[in-house]
Amino acid sequence: MAQFGKLAVIGLGLIGSSIFHAARRGQLASDLSGFDSNDDVRLRARALGFASVIEDDLIGCVTDADLVILCSPVGSYKQIAQEIAPHLKPGTILSDVGSVKGAVIRDVAPFVPAGVHLIPAHPIAGTEFSGPEAGFATLFDGRWAILTPPPGADAAAVGRLRAFWQGLGSQVDVMDSSHHDLVLAITSHLPHLIAYNIVGTAHDLEAVTEGEVIKYSASGFRDFTRIAASDPTMWRDIFLNNRDAVLEVLGRFNEDLSVLQRAVREGNGDLLFNMFTRTRAIRRAIVEIGQDSAAPNFGRDKR
Amino acid sequence: MAQFGKLAVIGLGLIGSSIFHAARRGQLASDLSGFDSNDDVRLRARALGFASVIEDDLIGCVTDADLVILCSPVGSYKQIAQEIAPHLKPGTILSDVGSVKGAVIRDVAPFVPAGVHLIPAHPIAGTEFSGPEAGFATLFDGRWAILTPPPGADAAAVGRLRAFWQGLGSQVDVMDSSHHDLVLAITSHLPHLIAYNIVGTAHDLEAVTEGEVIKYSASGFRDFTRIAASDPTMWRDIFLNNRDAVLEVLGRFNEDLSVLQRAVREGNGDLLFNMFTRTRAIRRAIVEIGQDSAAPNFGRDKR
Repeated sequence: MAQFGKLAVIGLGLIGSSIFHAARRGQLASDLSGFDSNDDVRLRARALGFASVIEDDLIGCVTDADLVILCSPVGSYKQIAQEIAPHLKPGTILSDVGSVKGAVIRDVAPFVPAGVHLIPAHPIAGTEFSGPEAGFATLFDGRWAILTPPPGADAAAVGRLRAFWQGLGSQVDVMDSSHHDLVLAITSHLPHLIAYNIVGTAHDLEAVTEGEVIKYSASGFRDFTRIAASDPTMWRDIFLNNRDAVLEVLGRFNEDLSVLQRAVREGNGDLLFNMFTRTRAIRRAIVEIGQDSAAPNFGRDKR
Repeated sequence: MAQFGKLAVIGLGLIGSSIFHAARRGQLASDLSGFDSNDDVRLRARALGFASVIEDDLIGCVTDADLVILCSPVGSYKQIAQEIAPHLKPGTILSDVGSVKGAVIRDVAPFVPAGVHLIPAHPIAGTEFSGPEAGFATLFDGRWAILTPPPGADAAAVGRLRAFWQGLGSQVDVMDSSHHDLVLAITSHLPHLIAYNIVGTAHDLEAVTEGEVIKYSASGFRDFTRIAASDPTMWRDIFLNNRDAVLEVLGRFNEDLSVLQRAVREGNGDLLFNMFTRTRAIRRAIVEIGQDSAAPNFGRDKR
């Protein structure tokens, strides 16, 4: 028994294509309709066959849809919302998968017609790969999805969207958008900014060749390059749309780094040892609740 | 045909125990003798059985050895060198596996008797796990080992140590110790410092609970926690002994981060996009030369 009639997904990259794969696996909608603004992506998505139909126009994709999910970069939402809003039928749930949530409500809510339920969402799942070929049905299994319904949102609609994400394999939490944006600033946005930055620093050092950085990357550097290989457009839009929270946690990070820097300069071994000890407990907890692999090196080296 | 008679390994953690496993696999020495200053580690190492003998005293371990490898934290080298030096026979190669190399020559060379060959080494391999149980025979396979012979080192001895590391499964490079220390500062020491720091920052944020950081860690944070779970004593000693190179690359990192911080503050999307684009090529190169997995998420999610 499908939970929804027509599911419309706009943006057919890693997340959009994975939603189709997982929705099909869970029989969560009877009709799977996709659209992407990129001609080549539409062709490839059609060949991959994960949707019932890949539409050539945006309006056709959302017409008669019961659930519409924006899976394009956050910077594109405003224009898309403006275009599709007049074509959404009453009762439709309009959602998304963006990594920032306050900006989604700011950009999209003004266009949402009465009777349409705006319920932003964010699956905490992904890989460093992009495009319609990157999607797979188990991406959301055991990961968390966060819903950030605006104040006054329809409880039944929130419940239906929660059931949908559970059907995709996720565990679901609900919180307000500003808290989401702060939590993600520290767990996701700052790590990505730091990873992009250190890869850039290594690239620019004159005294160490890029070949050396690459050859000896198994000493720690390679772990940073994985997330620094994520989609540049998506990440540009995240930083443009979560500025305040990112600057807040970056300020904290810089303060803490100054303390470590001074400890290195002064040879303060006790401070370094204490800092390096307390971080192990967090790692252990992440592995214990199944959000990461317990295998050494993420299982990269065969035992 | 064994390359060495007696191999003595001091320090029976991840690297020391892995050397024994791999030396046994490659039949690289006829006699495998181990020592660790920790009583409990010696007991566990004996039970694990990866060495011919685990000695209860340091001198017994190195007596008559043809190759001695220090695998304890770098801060312990000076005292160990002082104690064992009078008991090394002429022709012995004295080496180590520390992540800094200038400090090894500074601390150890003054004690090395004539006829003993000091040839520091550093295998670029490891996992986030510590202790004698963490070792395994394939740890060095396909990874790089860097030898940093001091000026005037005996070429034949360097050649024998090179063959030994190749026998353990490694590819071998030779460079001078100061260049090694700068290369590792950017590829290993800075990434570890940054990872320890960001895990600490997340731990201290009042507005986001530790439970939230752990639950939503799949969004990027978890990749940092792996290397921030490394052995605290070993890492304290690395930062105390590679101060200048670490401060140099940390200065560069901070400069670059200030540029990104300003771009976020000013909403400079073009600068962010360009920074996020050029980092992908380095990731691709690391995967291409086999120093990391091509599987999404390091293969953590099943497809």
